[in-house]
Amino acid sequence: MSQPNAAEKMERSKEPYISPYMPKYPDPMSNISSFKIIESTLREGEQFANAFFDTAKKIEIAKALDKIGVDYLELTSPAASEQSRNDCTAIANLGLNAKILTHVRCHMDDAKLAIATGVDGLDVVIGTSSYLREFSHGKDMDYITAKAIEVISFIKASGLEVRFSTEDSFRSDLVDLLSIYKAVDKIGVTRVGIADTVGCANPRQVYELVKTLRSVVSCDIECHFHNDTGCAIANAYAALEAGATHIDTSVLGIGERNGITPLGGLLARMYAADKAYVMGKYDLTAIREVENIVADAVEVTIPFNNYITGYCAFTHKAGIHAKAILNNPSTYEILNPQDFGLTRYVSIGHRLTGWNAVKNRVEQLNLGLTDDDAKRVTVKIKELADVRPLSLDDVDTLLRTYLQAKNEGVHTHFLDNIDTPDQITKLAT
Amino acid sequence: MSQPNAAEKMERSKEPYISPYMPKYPDPMSNISSFKIIESTLREGEQFANAFFDTAKKIEIAKALDKIGVDYLELTSPAASEQSRNDCTAIANLGLNAKILTHVRCHMDDAKLAIATGVDGLDVVIGTSSYLREFSHGKDMDYITAKAIEVISFIKASGLEVRFSTEDSFRSDLVDLLSIYKAVDKIGVTRVGIADTVGCANPRQVYELVKTLRSVVSCDIECHFHNDTGCAIANAYAALEAGATHIDTSVLGIGERNGITPLGGLLARMYAADKAYVMGKYDLTAIREVENIVADAVEVTIPFNNYITGYCAFTHKAGIHAKAILNNPSTYEILNPQDFGLTRYVSIGHRLTGWNAVKNRVEQLNLGLTDDDAKRVTVKIKELADVRPLSLDDVDTLLRTYLQAKNEGVHTHFLDNIDTPDQITKLAT
Repeated sequence: MSQPNAAEKMERSKEPYISPYMPKYPDPMSNISSFKIIESTLREGEQFANAFFDTAKKIEIAKALDKIGVDYLELTSPAASEQSRNDCTAIANLGLNAKILTHVRCHMDDAKLAIATGVDGLDVVIGTSSYLREFSHGKDMDYITAKAIEVISFIKASGLEVRFSTEDSFRSDLVDLLSIYKAVDKIGVTRVGIADTVGCANPRQVYELVKTLRSVVSCDIECHFHNDTGCAIANAYAALEAGATHIDTSVLGIGERNGITPLGGLLARMYAADKAYVMGKYDLTAIREVENIVADAVEVTIPFNNYITGYCAFTHKAGIHAKAILNNPSTYEILNPQDFGLTRYVSIGHRLTGWNAVKNRVEQLNLGLTDDDAKRVTVKIKELADVRPLSLDDVDTLLRTYLQAKNEGVHTHFLDNIDTPDQITKLAT
Repeated sequence: MSQPNAAEKMERSKEPYISPYMPKYPDPMSNISSFKIIESTLREGEQFANAFFDTAKKIEIAKALDKIGVDYLELTSPAASEQSRNDCTAIANLGLNAKILTHVRCHMDDAKLAIATGVDGLDVVIGTSSYLREFSHGKDMDYITAKAIEVISFIKASGLEVRFSTEDSFRSDLVDLLSIYKAVDKIGVTRVGIADTVGCANPRQVYELVKTLRSVVSCDIECHFHNDTGCAIANAYAALEAGATHIDTSVLGIGERNGITPLGGLLARMYAADKAYVMGKYDLTAIREVENIVADAVEVTIPFNNYITGYCAFTHKAGIHAKAILNNPSTYEILNPQDFGLTRYVSIGHRLTGWNAVKNRVEQLNLGLTDDDAKRVTVKIKELADVRPLSLDDVDTLLRTYLQAKNEGVHTHFLDNIDTPDQITKLAT
């Protein structure tokens, strides 16, 4: 392979993200560039405090997720209620590109009910931590293993995909965990799952556990991370580095308590790691729509600081940031807003502003002021913004009126006579 | 040291978090149990799109943060505007327990201005990535190093703490980075800082860089992480594992774009890692107050999924979760809500409910119904909740009216005759 020439290097240097810290020698088992998404808004998301999806809403959400291109949709167990069962059947029959899964307890009755709905696969789960064995189902590991083998064999015989997951994996005994995963791998389970059910795991722990598991089983590895302590996205990334293949997400991260790895946040992280893979496989411009549908359905406001679609995700404010962003967006942006169907906003009417940002606005408005003019107006903006922030309209008015005053040769006098932001607002009227 | 007896083991098993996955052999340089917080709501937070704090609001925020017990407060540079300078002086003179820092460019003018305000220390910053060197300040590494030594020596001579940080550290050349950190460490800088200015770093990268840096400098190491790709909390944790000493935070994570490591989220993570250290040093019950003050000041709603204080952080919904939580909260809770001055809520009026949760409510209301009664009412709740979720009032009405019917010997008939949630609501009136 030939070395890139200077022009190619220059082209590459304009890419939104080329990090000298991206691993030159990636983890041998890494699936950063080949991961799959199991979207669980219609299962984990239904466990969010506010969630109540009727059939029509579930179908709307399923279609919006299918438009993004997620690999799987996971649905609430048909054993949960009569309507849940009917909804499994309805969504399995929509003919979506995404494969349809439903999430069931490790019981034969649940498995039979689920298979009858026409889904593509079953996600089977049982708790293995001492906490859950003592305070939830009360079963020991021999019982769990025997049960798992019975249920998995039955599902496999029906020709469906089957995943076997433990619950609360990070508080389970390591030898117990590896033993049961090895046993189910041996009988041909499609995937094994690791779940940080309480949100206690951290990335280096996750990396170690997945790496160890990767050497024990030959099937795919799915990971499910709760976000109680803020690591749900980072844990998903560490899991993929160590060889996990599938990540569970939900729209806006909704789920039990404060939820799980959010779909949008995971896509932001993976875009930073392998933009070509993510953009080739998923429609990132469709994220905003499904977030709006789900936020509306569960009656929450999209967080101000939400990944990608939060209203300030692409707003730049400090003068030093604004200046560099105007020169080259990659300086302070790892995500290119256009790739997500969004736009950048550089805020300039505040006391942290800088003259380069103001000069950029002068050019946008085609006012033909000099650098010296921009500097003088910037000093005035900072002074006024100590009283209150100026709107972009205020800044524009100030610049236009300054130009007018300059043309009349009275611009120094003009600036000296403005003492409050309100005076500018009045100038506009 | 003697082995714990059975009773002691039982006591310990009730602790909110004892993980078999906590490292038995922790990283030798780890500061998980000795970290410090540099709270930057009044600097990074002021760069948030909506932020405009007047002097009174800054003082209110500073006092609320001091109540939590954060180690440092970082303020906007006095060079930003006249009011910013006056505010530095005012807050430096409040007599808070927290040390007061201000954040300045690597310029002698800025340093002089800052020293004159009476702060305890200066956080000096300059960009070292090729992006920033090309598109922001245009300086080379020799210039940067010489400038850094000049400014740091000057600040040290005045007797103040001085931190030297690069900007965009994760896209800087590793040799450049280590060279400049080594040079400033040699002349006695108090701390060096690493900043993920664009939010591109991931935890294992962070761990590697901090670990390498830890072997190069003998001073403290501060880390600053943006959250564009969802790793700001996890990166802070990985940095502490590798030997970093100080983490930058802001209330609700407010800052440029979607912000940095949030104070509450970091405290949740560190509580999970070392509850004794965190609870011994910080007043966790004061988090909610400062979040309310800041959210109000910058006119945002606290995100529904916010760490600790989000309204659903301690809400449990699925039947299987609710059952276990009622037996032992540690099963599904890594954070004990009481430690944060908050309470737990178990949601039961929905189709994912389970009879154990319903039975628990029976006991809370002291209704004296049997397990069999609880199971029968649960089946009815699931059926009705397929139409719409029931409020807790609805569930209570159903239970009370069922008891009444049972006392009259007509409870089977009673349940059979309820077909819609609205009938229950009417029963209450």
